[in-house]
Amino acid sequence: MMGVENPLGMHVILDLYECDPKILDDIEKIEEILTKAAEIANATVIDKRFHKFSPQGVSGAVVVSESHITIHTWPEHGYASVDVYTCGDHTMPVKAGEYIIKALKCKNPTVVKIDRGILFRKD
Amino acid sequence: MMGVENPLGMHVILDLYECDPKILDDIEKIEEILTKAAEIANATVIDKRFHKFSPQGVSGAVVVSESHITIHTWPEHGYASVDVYTCGDHTMPVKAGEYIIKALKCKNPTVVKIDRGILFRKD
Repeated sequence: MMGVENPLGMHVILDLYECDPKILDDIEKIEEILTKAAEIANATVIDKRFHKFSPQGVSGAVVVSESHITIHTWPEHGYASVDVYTCGDHTMPVKAGEYIIKALKCKNPTVVKIDRGILFRKD
Repeated sequence: MMGVENPLGMHVILDLYECDPKILDDIEKIEEILTKAAEIANATVIDKRFHKFSPQGVSGAVVVSESHITIHTWPEHGYASVDVYTCGDHTMPVKAGEYIIKALKCKNPTVVKIDRGILFRKD
């Protein structure tokens, strides 16, 4: 019988509706939130890139060790699209997602967690 | 009856097993492939960040307009974790995914496409 290794990556997909539009359009606040989220996930930040769109909206990517956290916001719809992808048993992507939901004052979150990179071994 | 708007984002999740390990460990080649994939997706590149890990593996993030393409590779397992997230009716994330599968010489791809940011309107 084949055995299954731990997945290489854990990917938490957050579709966040009814967030605070002011926070969603504040690039400095968004950067602060994602940086803190990486810390809560117990992930090591390698790089960060954030962009403000005209007339509104923010995109950000935090590259952590062999993983990432990304966000795209639509303040006009109160919506944020967030992905928290981490590797390793010491990381806690769902906990980071919980923090992001609270920080964006989201009243209608949807969360899906998927395993990425499932390897089989011969026992 | 409520109507449904087009989704704000289209997210293609690719778990790519049995790829060419040499390509997966070649940071320049991976950057070339993701840049070309953004072009095929018809997305506008804003920023790019790539990192090589020791002893092996590459991570990359291409930030495109209000979206992103990311990759994390495990050459030792022949595995790559790829996400192509794009916005707008003019973008073609699945086509970009198809290109990445071929470029990594992947023999065992899994592909899932999900809609992100589904808004309801009152008709």
